[in-house]
Amino acid sequence: MTTIDLQIHSSLQSSIDPSSAIEDANNGIGKDDERWRMLWHEPMQGEHLASIRLLVKKLKPQCENILLLGIGGSALGTKALHTALGSDGPRLFVLDNIDPHTVQTTIDTIMLDDPTLEHTVVTVISKSGETAEITSLLMVVEQAMGEATFVAITGPSGTLREYASKKKWATLTVPDGVGGRFSVLSPVGLFPAAMCGIDIEELLRGAREMDARCQQTENNPAGRLSASLVGAMQEGKAIHVMMPYCDRMENFARWYVQLWAESLGKINKNGVRIGPTPVAAIGATDQHSMLQLWREGPTDKVIGFVSVSEMDAVPLGKTAISDSQEWLCGKTLSSLLHAQQKATEKAMQEAAQATWTITLDQIDAFAVGEFIALWQAAVAIAGRLLGVNPYNQPGVELSKQLTRDAISKK
Amino acid sequence: MTTIDLQIHSSLQSSIDPSSAIEDANNGIGKDDERWRMLWHEPMQGEHLASIRLLVKKLKPQCENILLLGIGGSALGTKALHTALGSDGPRLFVLDNIDPHTVQTTIDTIMLDDPTLEHTVVTVISKSGETAEITSLLMVVEQAMGEATFVAITGPSGTLREYASKKKWATLTVPDGVGGRFSVLSPVGLFPAAMCGIDIEELLRGAREMDARCQQTENNPAGRLSASLVGAMQEGKAIHVMMPYCDRMENFARWYVQLWAESLGKINKNGVRIGPTPVAAIGATDQHSMLQLWREGPTDKVIGFVSVSEMDAVPLGKTAISDSQEWLCGKTLSSLLHAQQKATEKAMQEAAQATWTITLDQIDAFAVGEFIALWQAAVAIAGRLLGVNPYNQPGVELSKQLTRDAISKK
Repeated sequence: MTTIDLQIHSSLQSSIDPSSAIEDANNGIGKDDERWRMLWHEPMQGEHLASIRLLVKKLKPQCENILLLGIGGSALGTKALHTALGSDGPRLFVLDNIDPHTVQTTIDTIMLDDPTLEHTVVTVISKSGETAEITSLLMVVEQAMGEATFVAITGPSGTLREYASKKKWATLTVPDGVGGRFSVLSPVGLFPAAMCGIDIEELLRGAREMDARCQQTENNPAGRLSASLVGAMQEGKAIHVMMPYCDRMENFARWYVQLWAESLGKINKNGVRIGPTPVAAIGATDQHSMLQLWREGPTDKVIGFVSVSEMDAVPLGKTAISDSQEWLCGKTLSSLLHAQQKATEKAMQEAAQATWTITLDQIDAFAVGEFIALWQAAVAIAGRLLGVNPYNQPGVELSKQLTRDAISKK
Repeated sequence: MTTIDLQIHSSLQSSIDPSSAIEDANNGIGKDDERWRMLWHEPMQGEHLASIRLLVKKLKPQCENILLLGIGGSALGTKALHTALGSDGPRLFVLDNIDPHTVQTTIDTIMLDDPTLEHTVVTVISKSGETAEITSLLMVVEQAMGEATFVAITGPSGTLREYASKKKWATLTVPDGVGGRFSVLSPVGLFPAAMCGIDIEELLRGAREMDARCQQTENNPAGRLSASLVGAMQEGKAIHVMMPYCDRMENFARWYVQLWAESLGKINKNGVRIGPTPVAAIGATDQHSMLQLWREGPTDKVIGFVSVSEMDAVPLGKTAISDSQEWLCGKTLSSLLHAQQKATEKAMQEAAQATWTITLDQIDAFAVGEFIALWQAAVAIAGRLLGVNPYNQPGVELSKQLTRDAISKK
């Protein structure tokens, strides 16, 4: 069985005790904004799987293109899942911005491939239907691609639900208590995943097993992560890098950025503005971009590594380009990549940055489910340690009004 | 003529006077590590254009795939140029990591398209030929795709130069005094750009005109940027975000991250570890990821916006999905995107984060050349204001030895 191993370097063995935060988080499971922790339990899991399977059975055989309209938590999880786990056929397009050039190019690409749109499924995701980016994208896409099959993934009630009902579109439900950044294992992420042949039951099984570990009093990986990272913040290490040494995990670093930033960047219960600044990086590439700063710049960082043990064997062969490069002969790309991760970890510890390392045996749906649940549970605990509500985003709501003001002035 | 407009919000009107740093930077032009400022002047410009044109004339007619092997500054600039300016035909593949899955998939994709490799040009870039990632990639690619046409872009002497000579490959030269992160307008970036039909003379012309502005005592955009950003650091705002509201500029934010982090993250002349932490974001998308943190979290950030005035007109149409969304009718995607940028800028200023905004009239080679020269000149000045050498990377060199140690132990 694939499991996740978590190592936290001693500099991060914080004195913070997460046990009461863990207990409080455990008490919240299934209530209010923490209904997301029921996504991998019955009856919610069974209801979601049944409705998704029914729709996938109907739509997948003809589907060659899936166009997803979603932003923030409605897109980041899906992008991460598909980069990690791939597709068995349909091409996935995600429009998560309103850049007109990207939107037009994407529509043109799909129309060229499927002029009648008989093989195209548009999935629009918005809990409320009041997110301007998504309603705008929908207006444009409906004009250009009205003959496609539309699916709406939305809340139990609201603007998009009503519109989908009027248009007689198939719908899937984002339950109450499942916020955008906690929604990847709800129909929001599971439907596009299932359309591409990803084993969504394994995703849920991985999440369920990890979430059980994340409720333990002892040896709780989410408790250790959150206590260490909150402890690091108190020591002035508030820049929290996630650096997978595996391209397929790169989009999970971006998923983490939203989860960590939007959940924990808040005014705390004492009225103080707090929050870590998460940064996404990719190894080994960003050793040639950010490493110099981490090594010689301020000691204000936690560098987190995501390493994958089993990778394809691509041998370097027996002929180096020069004597100085002979040491590479007989090695593989993955052995070099692993060596670089170890070397960077060591370099960071020597440079007085804190580190953590999560090692996945391999990338499969189970391990990815574990990874997701680990971080979502870590946020639930970290919010309590920091005295913030990890489930709201008042700062984003304010900006929506400013946008309406700005566009009205034009 | 397209020009760049730079606005810096009053909270960033730092009291730092950059004039002596500008003067010192002007004195450095063309010497030692600052020979990069001759890239857009004769005779260097003419020599580069002539050698690139000769090679492009020979290779472009048959070329359908360009595979670039490069990491850090050898790849980031090319990725940014091509995302911004596109290609008139050849498909560009960049391998800037040693992830075995990505490497194998990329090779397979090219081999499927061009089994005889008659239409494939492999461009390998390393100033020394001693960068393990690149020599490894070259070992793998030569085994798999030995029949392709190889071009090496490398220093005047060194391991890769010797190897290319032995293999009778065409070569282009990265001149001394042009470091990786300052090399996008050298043959490193210009050759792949020219192969894809990008107007490299316009790139250089834009850089030349901007660099002239960046040498002025008064109204010097690089001086204002660097003084403001260094001033912000002194006020505790050391997280420096670049957020283009334009997908085509997204990779320039990553190019900037390397330039800013690796140049300025250093031990300064007083022995203190300093350096800003640059962060790449994309608008409007990351309003749904990082904005909450910026709005309610610590006031330790400078949010920089890159806005493009002229974008494709994609009208939203006259039918909103509900009464509450009627305000979108008659608008365009670009008007909404511009409104969001303005709203976010205002929200950040209200939230006591500092801001700057660079507005490009449109995205063309001239404006992109201006943008590049602006930031490279800003680094030259900022290095002097901070008392660091922006042209070395001792922290990266150390990690290379650790990698060799780690792989030898296996």
